[in-house]
Amino acid sequence: MKQVAILMGSKSDLEIVRAAFDVLDEFGVGFEARILSAHRTPEEAAAFAASAADRGYKVVICAAGMAAHLGGVVAGHTTLPVVGVPMVSEPFKAQDSLLSIVQMPPGVPVAAVTAGKAGAKNAALFAVEILATADAALAEKLRAFRARQKEQVLAADAELQRELAERKSR
Amino acid sequence: MKQVAILMGSKSDLEIVRAAFDVLDEFGVGFEARILSAHRTPEEAAAFAASAADRGYKVVICAAGMAAHLGGVVAGHTTLPVVGVPMVSEPFKAQDSLLSIVQMPPGVPVAAVTAGKAGAKNAALFAVEILATADAALAEKLRAFRARQKEQVLAADAELQRELAERKSR
Amino acid sequence: MKQVAILMGSKSDLEIVRAAFDVLDEFGVGFEARILSAHRTPEEAAAFAASAADRGYKVVICAAGMAAHLGGVVAGHTTLPVVGVPMVSEPFKAQDSLLSIVQMPPGVPVAAVTAGKAGAKNAALFAVEILATADAALAEKLRAFRARQKEQVLAADAELQRELAERKSR
Amino acid sequence: MKQVAILMGSKSDLEIVRAAFDVLDEFGVGFEARILSAHRTPEEAAAFAASAADRGYKVVICAAGMAAHLGGVVAGHTTLPVVGVPMVSEPFKAQDSLLSIVQMPPGVPVAAVTAGKAGAKNAALFAVEILATADAALAEKLRAFRARQKEQVLAADAELQRELAERKSR
Amino acid sequence: MKQVAILMGSKSDLEIVRAAFDVLDEFGVGFEARILSAHRTPEEAAAFAASAADRGYKVVICAAGMAAHLGGVVAGHTTLPVVGVPMVSEPFKAQDSLLSIVQMPPGVPVAAVTAGKAGAKNAALFAVEILATADAALAEKLRAFRARQKEQVLAADAELQRELAERKSR
Amino acid sequence: MKQVAILMGSKSDLEIVRAAFDVLDEFGVGFEARILSAHRTPEEAAAFAASAADRGYKVVICAAGMAAHLGGVVAGHTTLPVVGVPMVSEPFKAQDSLLSIVQMPPGVPVAAVTAGKAGAKNAALFAVEILATADAALAEKLRAFRARQKEQVLAADAELQRELAERKSR
Amino acid sequence: MKQVAILMGSKSDLEIVRAAFDVLDEFGVGFEARILSAHRTPEEAAAFAASAADRGYKVVICAAGMAAHLGGVVAGHTTLPVVGVPMVSEPFKAQDSLLSIVQMPPGVPVAAVTAGKAGAKNAALFAVEILATADAALAEKLRAFRARQKEQVLAADAELQRELAERKSR
Amino acid sequence: MKQVAILMGSKSDLEIVRAAFDVLDEFGVGFEARILSAHRTPEEAAAFAASAADRGYKVVICAAGMAAHLGGVVAGHTTLPVVGVPMVSEPFKAQDSLLSIVQMPPGVPVAAVTAGKAGAKNAALFAVEILATADAALAEKLRAFRARQKEQVLAADAELQRELAERKSR
Repeated sequence: MKQVAILMGSKSDLEIVRAAFDVLDEFGVGFEARILSAHRTPEEAAAFAASAADRGYKVVICAAGMAAHLGGVVAGHTTLPVVGVPMVSEPFKAQDSLLSIVQMPPGVPVAAVTAGKAGAKNAALFAVEILATADAALAEKLRAFRARQKEQVLAADAELQRELAERKSR
Repeated sequence: MKQVAILMGSKSDLEIVRAAFDVLDEFGVGFEARILSAHRTPEEAAAFAASAADRGYKVVICAAGMAAHLGGVVAGHTTLPVVGVPMVSEPFKAQDSLLSIVQMPPGVPVAAVTAGKAGAKNAALFAVEILATADAALAEKLRAFRARQKEQVLAADAELQRELAERKSR
Repeated sequence: MKQVAILMGSKSDLEIVRAAFDVLDEFGVGFEARILSAHRTPEEAAAFAASAADRGYKVVICAAGMAAHLGGVVAGHTTLPVVGVPMVSEPFKAQDSLLSIVQMPPGVPVAAVTAGKAGAKNAALFAVEILATADAALAEKLRAFRARQKEQVLAADAELQRELAERKSR
Repeated sequence: MKQVAILMGSKSDLEIVRAAFDVLDEFGVGFEARILSAHRTPEEAAAFAASAADRGYKVVICAAGMAAHLGGVVAGHTTLPVVGVPMVSEPFKAQDSLLSIVQMPPGVPVAAVTAGKAGAKNAALFAVEILATADAALAEKLRAFRARQKEQVLAADAELQRELAERKSR
Repeated sequence: MKQVAILMGSKSDLEIVRAAFDVLDEFGVGFEARILSAHRTPEEAAAFAASAADRGYKVVICAAGMAAHLGGVVAGHTTLPVVGVPMVSEPFKAQDSLLSIVQMPPGVPVAAVTAGKAGAKNAALFAVEILATADAALAEKLRAFRARQKEQVLAADAELQRELAERKSR
Repeated sequence: MKQVAILMGSKSDLEIVRAAFDVLDEFGVGFEARILSAHRTPEEAAAFAASAADRGYKVVICAAGMAAHLGGVVAGHTTLPVVGVPMVSEPFKAQDSLLSIVQMPPGVPVAAVTAGKAGAKNAALFAVEILATADAALAEKLRAFRARQKEQVLAADAELQRELAERKSR
Repeated sequence: MKQVAILMGSKSDLEIVRAAFDVLDEFGVGFEARILSAHRTPEEAAAFAASAADRGYKVVICAAGMAAHLGGVVAGHTTLPVVGVPMVSEPFKAQDSLLSIVQMPPGVPVAAVTAGKAGAKNAALFAVEILATADAALAEKLRAFRARQKEQVLAADAELQRELAERKSR
Repeated sequence: MKQVAILMGSKSDLEIVRAAFDVLDEFGVGFEARILSAHRTPEEAAAFAASAADRGYKVVICAAGMAAHLGGVVAGHTTLPVVGVPMVSEPFKAQDSLLSIVQMPPGVPVAAVTAGKAGAKNAALFAVEILATADAALAEKLRAFRARQKEQVLAADAELQRELAERKSR
């Protein structure tokens, strides 16, 4: 069953958003991804959001740039948790998209994660964390992911130690 | 006939938005004003926008703060010109609302004016300028308004000259 | 059972954070609130985070200002979803706290909501939305909350219509 | 008849501004384009603005970067609607041009659109929206444009669905 | 003879600009002050600038806020040195006025000083410094001003030393 | 005689600063250029500034990046007008250098021009404008420079008209 | 013996800087405090810095606002560690002072702490930490300070627990 | 003996941080470098910090980007002076890392230096300055370093003088 819906405002966001696909695949979490614009396909975006809960989604990830209204529009039509990923674009980088996503008025939250590709990954992880609050197996996978991640840092550190030892022996 | 629709995202915007009412009254331009939230009353906002042209409106002014999506949502449902007024609020002042309004993606413009009360006035004047492109009498009123405005600056300058003359004679 | 943990970095955050208490009370969601500093009580903060899942919490809300590390420190010790509320303080308002919360590196997400009091409310609502993904009754309460919220906007709009009708009849 | 005047402050803005030419050509709207600097050819800029209404223009688009005064200077000499496009340049990107354009004092509005090339396109669309308030055929063209635009998003979405289906079948 | 012209864009700038009057009076430098708006009295502003050199002015100080175009407009009509004072206003404080003043394109410089009241004082001092390049007596007065200013800092320091001595003797 | 001193904080600023050399050469204004660091050669920078007036300089241009203290240090040791050019560098572009230059405390002004290469040119032009307040021949050269500059804009505009005529004839 | 020198650029910084006096008194660390301006008393500031090491100081704290050059000027004349405290002032709050302090070029470091009063306290604590690297008794005092600070947070938390218990018993 | 510990939050920071290695090698100061993440290896980071003083370190340098919590986490577990280097990354450059490092709450200071590679160098120099407060030989080396650095600026200046002489003789 697909538990996560990933919406992006434009085809140009796809390369960044793929980082979220990879995370969800890694955790075995089913997802649907859609290109739906808050401004160019507003009815479709609203309809998707309004029916998302009934169609079994648990979390909606919205990736959008510039005046990033997609998360807010979706949040206005669903009570599912909506996670926003600020896309990066010229000239304001992610200052415009981050503020457009995070500064929702009281009553209709959207939660923002890191801007850009790191954010696509983090949004997917955050969605997994949400699902894991009701899925012990998924929670276990998250802990294993964190452990692997830690090993990678420690391995990088070990490599640095070897380099430094060599440097000093010169 | 009401030619201008003024939407605001929250009751708390009303005191600022009144500056637009006054301008439109001064020019004898009929308007409707509505409190409609892009996030709390999304269907109503969309429905209003979608029917605005058929109901005879020529311009829609949208005043909103924070993640100011109202202008974008309205623009997604109409081809009428949409003018956005960035409201000012803590802690980001109007950095969030200005960027949320102006940074629309290509294809669905929203035009932003000055932030805050000056912007409410300017949005109304800009709406009158739009109407005046097809209404010579209104264009004449605009020129008269500008002339009065010029007189006020010159009068302030004349008063300053009197003060400076007095200062120097001391 | 307490499902939500609310951490704040300083006693001075309490007045703002109470807005979250009120929301959770309104939804009948049990919560614990703690003052725990990432810098002044780092062991306690880490220990709380590390045991939070085992103690039955489903979501952790972290409110912190300035160099707001609390959310990141907690997220480093748990795989529960961590929601950060940027507190507002002089001189950088919430520019420092928002960026310190949201810009987490890939692998350890923290999700940020609106800065300040609106954010305290939205963090609590977002926590309820997370819990509601596995609790149909709570989801129903959320929909009712949204409906009431919509009624408030429509009531404010109705009041504005009365005022405008009166204005025009003068 | 030429209904739109497009002014740019420097030859270097031309490549960006061409996006506006293309939009107006697409809609069959006649335009004139001029390179006129608020600082290097101030008399010419003022004279153009002062006579623009009499020469039949309905809207003036001003594209300028850095301390982008062109829109304000033009607006000071005409009551036609003036739309400003913030050009992007180093080192402040469009922070300087956007604020220089949008923050007009009360009484003399300039309306800003998106920064950069997207803004050149949006300024032209906004000009068409203004003209369409008094031209039903143009309004119809706008709706057709929006419909085509929507089709493009839906087509991109359909392509994504095929890609995802293939991905999952692997 | 009046050697310095001080222009301000609005009556509301006067209280801040008075700090410049006081400095010029202190140095015995004659000045004229005018309220002239780049947008509301553009012809008057241009005419003043165009004739300023012939009327004997050596320096023009322009104080303006928001989209502060006054300095640029004046600089476009004169080759006298133009000094801009960024006025402070809500919501962008002086971010808008500073960038609107300083970011002039190559070929038409405006020189910006400190924002706000300190800037009004500094603009006047800078004008005196310019005049003093051709007036040895004025240069001497500037050196005396600096010496007095230094004495004030040293006096404040001496007072602090007394306070600290007392503090330590407690 | 050398009337303008150009100081730069680092050898790496030289390529940008050359734009100022070219302007001064074009106007036949003698200048000296020095690499002097406020932090790495503070005594030399102070000594240069303290003796600049006696050595016949009329204006000091200071080009510096990052925490650009050079202008302020020089201004502290001379009453000659000091013009600061904000250099551009990563990661803060010119936000750091502009604010470090322009935000001088009341009593010791430094006047900032455009950031980067445009600023190097504008600083030199501003220096010429200062010298021209006491040199009618130089003032005449400035007016001629402005006239040539205007011709360049008009020529670019004429070229655009030819292109547009051709575009329309297609 | 006085081991810490605290310089401030203006008498107006004194109220904020007192927070540093209190910390140093609390740790029994002798200090001298001076009002010395990088721009108004540059020779005195340079002389103080140049002789600071010989006079037995180990650390110099520099508190300054706006274009905060004091730290950089001092660092240019000494190899003692220089700690900068960004003072807060209108209109740029501490954006100008922080960047002016921290963005020193490679080769002459100044280390910045928190802006404002919290920074005055932290600069003093940081100075104590530096001294404690060669003073075991002082290091012990720092650990005790941290322990007390932790107790204060835990006490505030305990009070919150009582309040929450009472809240829930209502 | 190793007196300086250099921590970095990610392997990707290593190329920048090497600038610090070179400085410490140049001064003959022993150091250890570790890759330790505040979020991915929080226990290891905390353990390292908590034992750093006992293991003989005098200063800890922490290089981290984005939501740069490493310095704060380390400072929470040690009373050694912690120096933070803001790493630069897209899209917020170093705005996020600088504020995350410097805006520590009162009681637990972290001192920030220049962002990026210049900062890695300056952090190492600052660490040497700290060590030199108790090591006269090191202080002497610092003075020699400053003298060499001064010579480099003067040599660059001398080269510029030759170039300018040649330019003028043409």
